[in-house]
Order: sequence, then structure tokens, then C-alpha cells
Amino acid sequence: MGLTLAQLASHLACEFDGDAECLISGVAALADATAGELSFLASSKYRADLAATQASVVIVAERDRATCPGNVLIAKDPYLAYARAAQLLYPEVLHEGGVHRSAVVDPTAQIDASAWIDALCVIGPDVVIGANAQIGAGCILDRDITIGSDCRLLANVTIHGQASLGERCVIQPGAVIGSDGFGYANDQSKWVKIPQIGGVILGDEVEVGANTTIDRGALSDTIIENGVILDNQVQIAHNVHIGEQTAIAGCTGVAGSTHIGKRCAIGGHVGIVGHLTIADGVHISAKTFVSQSIDSAGFYSSGTPVEPNARWRRNFVRMKQLDEMARRIKTLEKIVHKLSNDV
Amino acid sequence: MGLTLAQLASHLACEFDGDAECLISGVAALADATAGELSFLASSKYRADLAATQASVVIVAERDRATCPGNVLIAKDPYLAYARAAQLLYPEVLHEGGVHRSAVVDPTAQIDASAWIDALCVIGPDVVIGANAQIGAGCILDRDITIGSDCRLLANVTIHGQASLGERCVIQPGAVIGSDGFGYANDQSKWVKIPQIGGVILGDEVEVGANTTIDRGALSDTIIENGVILDNQVQIAHNVHIGEQTAIAGCTGVAGSTHIGKRCAIGGHVGIVGHLTIADGVHISAKTFVSQSIDSAGFYSSGTPVEPNARWRRNFVRMKQLDEMARRIKTLEKIVHKLSNDV
Amino acid sequence: MGLTLAQLASHLACEFDGDAECLISGVAALADATAGELSFLASSKYRADLAATQASVVIVAERDRATCPGNVLIAKDPYLAYARAAQLLYPEVLHEGGVHRSAVVDPTAQIDASAWIDALCVIGPDVVIGANAQIGAGCILDRDITIGSDCRLLANVTIHGQASLGERCVIQPGAVIGSDGFGYANDQSKWVKIPQIGGVILGDEVEVGANTTIDRGALSDTIIENGVILDNQVQIAHNVHIGEQTAIAGCTGVAGSTHIGKRCAIGGHVGIVGHLTIADGVHISAKTFVSQSIDSAGFYSSGTPVEPNARWRRNFVRMKQLDEMARRIKTLEKIVHKLSNDV
Repeated sequence: MGLTLAQLASHLACEFDGDAECLISGVAALADATAGELSFLASSKYRADLAATQASVVIVAERDRATCPGNVLIAKDPYLAYARAAQLLYPEVLHEGGVHRSAVVDPTAQIDASAWIDALCVIGPDVVIGANAQIGAGCILDRDITIGSDCRLLANVTIHGQASLGERCVIQPGAVIGSDGFGYANDQSKWVKIPQIGGVILGDEVEVGANTTIDRGALSDTIIENGVILDNQVQIAHNVHIGEQTAIAGCTGVAGSTHIGKRCAIGGHVGIVGHLTIADGVHISAKTFVSQSIDSAGFYSSGTPVEPNARWRRNFVRMKQLDEMARRIKTLEKIVHKLSNDV
Repeated sequence: MGLTLAQLASHLACEFDGDAECLISGVAALADATAGELSFLASSKYRADLAATQASVVIVAERDRATCPGNVLIAKDPYLAYARAAQLLYPEVLHEGGVHRSAVVDPTAQIDASAWIDALCVIGPDVVIGANAQIGAGCILDRDITIGSDCRLLANVTIHGQASLGERCVIQPGAVIGSDGFGYANDQSKWVKIPQIGGVILGDEVEVGANTTIDRGALSDTIIENGVILDNQVQIAHNVHIGEQTAIAGCTGVAGSTHIGKRCAIGGHVGIVGHLTIADGVHISAKTFVSQSIDSAGFYSSGTPVEPNARWRRNFVRMKQLDEMARRIKTLEKIVHKLSNDV
Repeated sequence: MGLTLAQLASHLACEFDGDAECLISGVAALADATAGELSFLASSKYRADLAATQASVVIVAERDRATCPGNVLIAKDPYLAYARAAQLLYPEVLHEGGVHRSAVVDPTAQIDASAWIDALCVIGPDVVIGANAQIGAGCILDRDITIGSDCRLLANVTIHGQASLGERCVIQPGAVIGSDGFGYANDQSKWVKIPQIGGVILGDEVEVGANTTIDRGALSDTIIENGVILDNQVQIAHNVHIGEQTAIAGCTGVAGSTHIGKRCAIGGHVGIVGHLTIADGVHISAKTFVSQSIDSAGFYSSGTPVEPNARWRRNFVRMKQLDEMARRIKTLEKIVHKLSNDV
């Protein structure tokens, strides 16, 4: 697999300078690239690597065009152009349609002839699998599951809860979609499980990270809109609704019935409590504790700074005294005000 | 499957108003329910939905009885009554006893004739599986594992470490029970693994969420008492002991040898360090960092508020100065006290 | 399996007091041990258990030698000696070489004749498995994976991304190695996936906990050096580099391209943002948020203390006023300074 500079430029709808016939067969970072490889300059941090790079072609912004020694592709957003180029150079390896002899498929399942079911999968009753879908080894699709066309489930993915996936979703290994939500009533200190009968709906082009969990709804559905990307070990509770193109980084948890808007960017290890509403376009930094709704776009944070332990311990003790400190300041202000008047 | 209003009232030991023969075949939220469905009013937040609901029957508290337009079931705790009604209307679908042809079962395993072992399970030596247990597809029960009667393992559950489950436990997909604890000695900066030879004991009616992990004990056992409910992605380290009916929400981690009391409610993303004791009846809010034992029932928290990033940054810097601020207040108080006396 | 006191002493290169022929067949805590068992005193906290223990042999430090009633092994580090003794008394049970009839093995895979592939494994094209490796039930090794000699994968482990494991690694159930990193460019608010083509390299004696995830690199590799130990539910993002003998406790997440030094000890539920450098020998306490690089060895922390909720709420409000409080202190200091001069 390879593309010439001219072919790449045509695919990416970019201008280029240099040898139109230069053949590119892979990508690498500026510092690591060798002949035949494409690289990119997306951050000024790496500008120093540009002069010395062995890459045959570099994607740069217009402003770096002149200073670039060899073949260049000119892109408004070099990182985005690189993403598209890499997709061309590293196309998904698709298996031909069929079912591995070791997979266990219920006779009521409807599997498109172009879809591939890999070794040791279990495809339950009334599962529907669309065209060109690739179901990796060891995946378990319980019953009444719908997988849209061109989806890829990598391996050991478990889908329960009458989940429905749109088209072109990618699900990393170990992800669980459609587990029971954490719903219980309490009867004299004993927990009584509430049957979780809602489903899970994933839109098109949703990506789900390794060992991420998405619960089915209690009554109505858990909904993940088109283009949402979830990193590894994210926890999405029952009846959460996530708006399109929102990104959530690793280890973040969203509690039940919270509604997150479109185009949000939520950092890693964030905890969002239940029954909140987060507006469209909200960015939340890593480790933030979101205990109340956020009603307008913007960048939000919480948390305390990392410090040498000995210093932290001294400040840590004071955190318990904050309210008292504030009152003492107020008292001082009153006295000082009076003193100032008296003097 | 359906029940009349009178049948439901009898099962739930509730009074009712309205058409005794009204047939109910499902449940839904007040706003979504249609004819033939049961709903409930458990929070005053939803009282506005009551007048317009299309539900055929609504479960309400006595105080709402008069204002309710149609058929009603009267319950002291409508949410609890709803839970029990939903269990009646959505009974677990149990597979007949047997072993799927694709499962791999060791000849020394003892499987009750009424238990079901689904596709592609691995049941190792000396595993004992009780009556009516349902072992979902892809579950792996290593060796010397005991599964009590009426347990349900949904799919892709892994059990190691000579674990023993009581009766009526429910284990969601991807959960791992009996993995090795994180126990190492250190030999001149090299880690030396300590064999983990303790087991895991789960009581009756324990529920374990998706991708939750429970380590086996180092020497003695990790113990989860009756009725404990663990949400998704909870981490329970070796030799933790959790008292009965305690609930732990998603992404919370409990470090080794910590003892948590009975009837605690622990929020999501909480971190509890090792070798602590948490009393019975302790509630801990989400994201709290529990670095010391808690010796009496009550509601506990830690953490900082979410703020717009620019404002948070200003406060963040000050957190490093807290001890200094406290000292400056003290100094001011001394000077001001002296000034007051002088004036 | 059993060893005499003299044999144990010889294996551990320790002195001993007492009956050289005393036979030991297991280990237990001081308070639980019975005849025939070995115990140890590694913390003064358990000294009270020493007098009453029923253990046949106790490992103690020289300083406790005199006060110990029965047979003793004398070790500089009793906990380390105990670890080595337990390894002798509880050797790994290794399966003879071979492939379970239910495993699915690609003909291009190269499996050493002494390695064991357990039930329902999937071993893909060009996978190489070294001598004495033990691949537990349900493991999936995608393609181009290398497993060094004497590795143990417990069960349901998924390995993708051209990962390479050194020798003697231990991987707990549910771990995912080589999942795609979370790399996307943005095109007018739509995420465009960047093909993740780097690999994952684990050194020798790396231990990976249950449901832990380690992403493959974006361009170059994610690297985990020799002797690193990762607890359960740890998340390692793409292109992270972890130095040898570093330990990371449960639920901790490390974001992309961060470089962690050698011999670090990182607590549970820590969040480390991307593109940082953490020096060798850094200790970080549980729940810390690491938002900046740490350039020297030492002990670091962040976070707020757990408090009764009512008190916490009062302090919580003040955290939003910290900068204002600091300014008010400064203002007071100026006024008071002026007043002092005036008086």
C-alpha cells in the first residue's frame, strides 16, 4: 500500500510543493521518520525537528511552507490532514463476510452476508448485524441487539440490554454495553433490585474505549448520540444522555440520568453526579468533581494542587479551618474599621 | 404476562382505588406510560406529570390518593412498591437446566441438574454450581469455585481464587472475582510477589457491577456480606470486609484490609485507603477521599467545588498558601489586639 | 508439599532457632496459624499476637529473636523472607505443554511445545508464545503478539496492538493490552480517528492487574519497563513510558505521552495528566491530581480532608472565596501596618 505525494494531495484536497511522484507508504513522528514516510508539524514545539527530519513528505501549515526543506503538503490544520492521510495509508483490514466455525450463533440472528463473526463469538436470539460489520473474537451479543453497518467490535466485547448501535461504531476490547443500571429500592435496610428494562442507543460513529461500561436505562433508554468518543474505563450510568461529538477521557464516571450536551470535552477521572444538566460546549478539566449543573459553555475545573507531602499536610489541616478563617478575617475587618475611625 | 390491579394489590399487600380488573402488562415513567402500563409517583418533582399521565395504574402515597385521577395503588413507599411490582411484571427469564454443547466443563465439576451453563463457558475442576444458577455465555470459573443456588452470572464473568458465592447473587458482565491482590515485598528496589492464597466469600444476594474487580485475600479471605450491592468499575482490594446491605457506587476503590460497616452508602469515585475501619451506617458523598477511619454513623465528604477555570486557577494558587494565610491571620489578630488595647 | 525449618532456612539463607526437622506445609497470619504453618512478624502492630500464635515457625527480625517462644527464622526483612518462603510453599501449578482442544489457533502462530494454551483461547496469526508460558482460558491474542517465556495470563485477557511481553509477566483476568489510544483530530466539531499504529512493549516481570488497560502507541510504542507492577483498573494511555520497578495502585490513570521514572510508588485513584515527566523515586499519595511535572524524588500529595458533611459544606463554600480571602488579608495587613505606625 502506498500513495504518491500527488495522490495524497488530491485525496486531502491540499496544495503541495516538491516531487509529485514521491511514494509514501507510512507515517512517523518528525524525529523518527525515514525515507518513504509522511510526517506532520502540528505544534510549534516540534519545529526544531523539522530541519533534521528524514520524512519524505511533511504536512505543514502555510506559515511553515517556506522554511520546510523537502516535499510538503500544505494544510489549514496539519493534524487533521495527518489523521486523514493516516486513514488512507492504514486502512482497516476487513475480514471477508462469514462466521467462524467456532462461533455460536442463534438461528434467529440476522447477520448480513458481508459481516464477519470471528472465533468464539456468541450471537444470541434476534440479534441483527449490518453490512460489513466486524465482530471480533470472543464478543457476546446477548439478545435483541442491533449492530449497524461497518461497526467494529474488537474482542471480548459484551453487549446486553437490547442495545442498538448505529453505523461505523468502534468498540474496544472488554467494553460492556447494556449492563443493568444500579437501581434499588430500600426495604427496611435491605436492597430490592429494580428490574432495568430500558435499552441503550448508540448513534453513528460512536467510539467506546477498553473496559468502558454503559448501563441500560431503568425505564427509558441510555442515549449516546452520533460521534461521541469515550476513552477507556469510562462509566456511563443508566439513563445518561450524551450529546453528539462529546469526548470523555479515561476513568471518568457519569451518574444516572445526567444529561451532557453536545461538543463537550470532559477530562479524565472526572466525577459527574446524577440528575444534572451540562450545557453544550462545556470543557471540564481532569479530576474535576461536578456536583451541580453547568448551564453555559466554558471551561470548568475543581481540585487542589499537587505539593510536596509535608507542605500539603500543613495546608490540608487548614482546609478544615477555612470557614473559621473567613470569620476571623471578617472580625478583623470590623475591628480594624473601627480602629481606623477611632484613630 | 399481565396482572390485574386487584392481583397487583394483593401481591403488594396494598390498598387500591379503581377498576379491580384493569390489566397491567408493563411499567413506564409517568410521562411516557401508555394504556396497560403501571407508573409511580415517588418524588414530588414529578407531581406535575400525574394529571396528564396515560398510565392505567399509578402507585402513590396516601397523601396523593385523593388528587389522583384514575386507578391507584396506595403504598407507604411507592418506589419500593414499584420495585416489587416490576419484579412481578418482568420476571427473570430462566433457561432450563443443562450445559450448552460448546461449554468446556471439567469432569470433577458438580453442576446441579437445574442449573444452566451457557455457550463457551469454562467450568474448571471442583467447581460446584447450585440449583437454578444461570451461568451466562463466556463465563470462566477457574477451580474450587462455589456458586450458590439461583445466582446469575450475566456474561464474560471471570472467577478465580477459590471464590464462594452465596445464593441469589447477580454478577454483571466483565466482573472479575478472585484476582490476585496487589501484594509484594521489596528486595533492593525489586518487587517480589507474595502468593495470594486467601479466598473471596460473597454472601447471599450480593450484586456486582460490570467490570468490577474483587481481589482474593492474601492470607485470609476477602469478605462481602449478604445484600451488599456494588456498582460498575468498583475495585475491592485483598482482605477488604464489607458489611451487609452496604451500597458502593461506580468507580469507587477500597484499598487492602479496610473494614466497611453494615448499611453504609458510599458514592461514586470515592477512594478509601487501606487498613481503615468505617463504622456502620456511614454515608460518603461522591469523589470523597477517605484517608482516616470513620468511627460513627453520619454523612461525610471532601473535595472542592467546580468553578469556571479562570476563577478556579486563582483559588488553586491560594490553596498552596493556606497555612501561610492562617499564620498571617494569627499575626494580624495579635497586632490588632495590641492596637485595640493601645488605642 | 512441605519443607523443614532447616530446609527453609537454607533456601532463604537465614539463621534459625529451634527444631530443624519441624515440617512446614503452609503459611498464615500469626493470629490464625495452626500447627504446621509458618507465620511472620513484619510490623510491631502484630507483636501482641506473637506470644499466643500456634504457628510452628515464625519469621522475625533479630531484635525479636529472644522474645519469640518457639521455632524462629531470623531475617533482616521478615516480610521479604515470608514472600520468598510462601513462593516455595505455594509454587505455581503449571500445566503441561499443549493446546486445549477447544482453543482456536492460527496455523502461523508459533507456540513453544512447553507452553500451555487453555480452553477457548484465540491465538491469532503470527503470535509467538515462549517456553512454559501459561495462557489461561478465554484469552485472546489478536495478531503479531509476542509472549515471553514463563508468562502467565490468567483468564479472559485480551491482547491487541502488536504487543510484546517480556519473560515472567503475570496478567490478571480482564486486562486489555494494546487497545487503541484515544487519538482524534477535530474537523468542524466532528472527531476524526487517528489510526493508532504504535505497539506496546512490556519488559520482564511486569504484573498487570485485573481489568487494567494499556493502550498501544499512536506512532511510537507505549513502554512498560522491567518489574513494573500495576494494580487493578489502572489506565495507561498511549505512549506512556513507565520506568522499571515502578508500582501503581488501583484505579489510577496516566494520560498520554507522560513519562514516569523508575522506582516510583503511585497510590490509588491518582490522576496524572498527559505529556508530563515524573522523576525517578517519586511517591505520590492516593487520590492526588498530578497536573504538572515532578522533577525530583520525594513524596507528593494533593486533595482535601474528609469531614462531616455539614462542616465540609461550610468550608466548601469558602474554597471559592480563597483568592478574595487572601486579598482581604493583604488589605488588612496594609491598614494595620499603617495604624501601627500612626498609633
